[in-house]
Amino acid sequence: MSSTLAIHEKVNRLRREGRRVFHLGFGEGRFPVHPKLLAALRDNADARGYAPVAGLAELREQVAEYYRRFGLQADASRVIVGSGSKSLLFAALAALRGDLVLARPCWVTYEAQARLAGKSVTAIPTSLDEGYCLTPDALRDGLRRAREAGGNPGILLLNSPGNPTGTIYPDELLSELAVVAREEGLRVLSDEIYALCAHGEVAHRSIARHYPEGTIVTGGLSKHLSLGGWRLGVAVLPTGELGRLLMDHMTAVASSVWTTASAPVQHAAVVAYGGDPDVESYIEACAAIQAGVTGYLYRQLESLGIPCPEPCGGFYLYPDFAPWRRALVERHGVGTSAELAELLLERESLAVLPGSEFGAEPAELCLRLSTSCLHGLADATAADVLSLAAERLPPERLVARACPQVVEVAALLGEFIAALGVAEPAPAVGGRVS
Amino acid sequence: MSSTLAIHEKVNRLRREGRRVFHLGFGEGRFPVHPKLLAALRDNADARGYAPVAGLAELREQVAEYYRRFGLQADASRVIVGSGSKSLLFAALAALRGDLVLARPCWVTYEAQARLAGKSVTAIPTSLDEGYCLTPDALRDGLRRAREAGGNPGILLLNSPGNPTGTIYPDELLSELAVVAREEGLRVLSDEIYALCAHGEVAHRSIARHYPEGTIVTGGLSKHLSLGGWRLGVAVLPTGELGRLLMDHMTAVASSVWTTASAPVQHAAVVAYGGDPDVESYIEACAAIQAGVTGYLYRQLESLGIPCPEPCGGFYLYPDFAPWRRALVERHGVGTSAELAELLLERESLAVLPGSEFGAEPAELCLRLSTSCLHGLADATAADVLSLAAERLPPERLVARACPQVVEVAALLGEFIAALGVAEPAPAVGGRVS
Repeated sequence: MSSTLAIHEKVNRLRREGRRVFHLGFGEGRFPVHPKLLAALRDNADARGYAPVAGLAELREQVAEYYRRFGLQADASRVIVGSGSKSLLFAALAALRGDLVLARPCWVTYEAQARLAGKSVTAIPTSLDEGYCLTPDALRDGLRRAREAGGNPGILLLNSPGNPTGTIYPDELLSELAVVAREEGLRVLSDEIYALCAHGEVAHRSIARHYPEGTIVTGGLSKHLSLGGWRLGVAVLPTGELGRLLMDHMTAVASSVWTTASAPVQHAAVVAYGGDPDVESYIEACAAIQAGVTGYLYRQLESLGIPCPEPCGGFYLYPDFAPWRRALVERHGVGTSAELAELLLERESLAVLPGSEFGAEPAELCLRLSTSCLHGLADATAADVLSLAAERLPPERLVARACPQVVEVAALLGEFIAALGVAEPAPAVGGRVS
Repeated sequence: MSSTLAIHEKVNRLRREGRRVFHLGFGEGRFPVHPKLLAALRDNADARGYAPVAGLAELREQVAEYYRRFGLQADASRVIVGSGSKSLLFAALAALRGDLVLARPCWVTYEAQARLAGKSVTAIPTSLDEGYCLTPDALRDGLRRAREAGGNPGILLLNSPGNPTGTIYPDELLSELAVVAREEGLRVLSDEIYALCAHGEVAHRSIARHYPEGTIVTGGLSKHLSLGGWRLGVAVLPTGELGRLLMDHMTAVASSVWTTASAPVQHAAVVAYGGDPDVESYIEACAAIQAGVTGYLYRQLESLGIPCPEPCGGFYLYPDFAPWRRALVERHGVGTSAELAELLLERESLAVLPGSEFGAEPAELCLRLSTSCLHGLADATAADVLSLAAERLPPERLVARACPQVVEVAALLGEFIAALGVAEPAPAVGGRVS
């Protein structure tokens, strides 16, 4: 059983025992469904026929237009719709030649997908110093090592905004990585599922703008529209011959595994990608609220002296407890992020995921905190979300309205850190273990 | 591009040119969505959260109970829900050891799935004499040959009612095949997606009743409820240790590729598997109408002397034009089923699929005729379907009401055969080419 599932079951057990648990373990958008999307799904419930494998023509047109607004050379003939962006990432991995290269920490599914597609994986460690972003030098170095080990690295996976770190690759860095990718003959798989959840100092940009002939961009409705359960993802394939080949191969994979996304959902997605001003404002409002909540918790972590990259997108914070390594071992016998996560759940009722779940070395003491499941807005309507965002409240009042539990979470973390004592000046920021 | 897609595009082109084309190329249920299922999807449109990877607990319970009614030892803990039964067939292939063994002709996707899962395929030819069913002797012989060739056959795929043949494995034959499977250590993948579309002399039974510890049964809403576009499939895993292992491995594949089926659709599926008497009557009515229409066309083929197995389930007829082989070659230069399908489309406006699309030897002259897209009921309500079935009309009147185009199809086939002249007494029934 994965540690994600394990923690989820433990949360349920503790709750059955009457404990109040703060669930920071799940990365699931929890804003209410926008009423126009709800209506669109209901209106198309009778769409019972198989949609084309690549998706409804109308939806592919809308998706292409949507991405063109963000500067991509998207064309409907190179858009493919799937059962969540995960399915399209798998199809791309199954269709592309060469092994996978990615930055660590990262979403654990990439590696499982690569294995299922018969590929080996080169994971390049990143650190807090670079905001957990892959640098051109680290990439070149990783490629060299992979080749020396007999590997055949062919696909670079980027995830920005990133899970679990919540950071974003600056545009200049993307431009530099594109140069390396082109020189080294890498195809880029750019997982941009959190693109419209960007909310910080660094704006989201796609590497496809710098490397259109070699980049596959994936996205979907799950995060910025809180529609993970609907299962709708999209991929924008590269320009030129590669895009044409990939369309053939990826639709062949789709046609062998899941056929296509659910037809009623595809019809609703036409509205989601239609640029409706109400829906667009709503997406921005959700991101603004997320920014307020995540920013609040970030400042609390900062004031406690817990190293953490500044969150710029998605639902996540990735604090590093390395400064308390000695106290954690001596007082609690905690030497790994998994043990730290367990301790926080048992003692403070904080359910979080350990960095090791994202490929970090077990002895690193980083945790992923997701604020998305703490929202107090689950039963509100989309109109309430919009008005809350429109009020432009100061952070404390926004948090009190949108996500009151975060105040308690910050307090519990504060007590936990206070009990541990003074931070050690030593082990390098970033918590890297040699 | 697959020949299925090719014929579909050709149909569209001919229709744009103003030609009236009879589309017998698609196997898609075309009865209207049952109103209770429509309401359930609409009522659950706001189910926006990720459902569990194996499916909603409530749905898994209903599915298990549903299958128990058919004599399976199904338990919710061994039920997994997916994005169409296709996704679950892939997950099973990816999870099970050994290569794939199947009967030919068969649905072409099995082989593509096996290749994607890194498996080789042993296809055992079947013939009209055995209703295109695999016999124990043929299976044993196929296994021996596969092993002699260095293969490692481990998985037997059965599809009953069968696509493309429309035939059903009699229960006695299933019992005999179960004995062979157990003796030879084969796992059985039993694709029963057409189970509730059974409509003929031979009743549908599952091989899982004879081999519960080694059989995975797959099904879904696509065929008997005309809901292919909704994308919901289910699998009932074997009893005992194998079922537990498969649950772990198949959910791992699901979690790496498509996560789970769309949540609103899963809620609607709770109703579909809930045993509601209205829904059950409707399923029976659809099958009864399908029986009337397919039976009518079967009798027309019979009266024309075209060899064809008697249809017992699904939407299909699988006639063999071998008796006109010489005339087809001499007059039309047609020597393969693909050429024959093209000729029928060009000359008679009949869009059908060639047997070679289902693994038959190219020179066999079998075609798959699907009546499911000819129904004239697309805009009717479920109530009309029920009342039509309740009227128990004589076949000709039922066809005239439910599927008037089939009368024209039969007439066109009659003219086509008449122009070809007298059938040759020779080439064996079954159209097998030595």
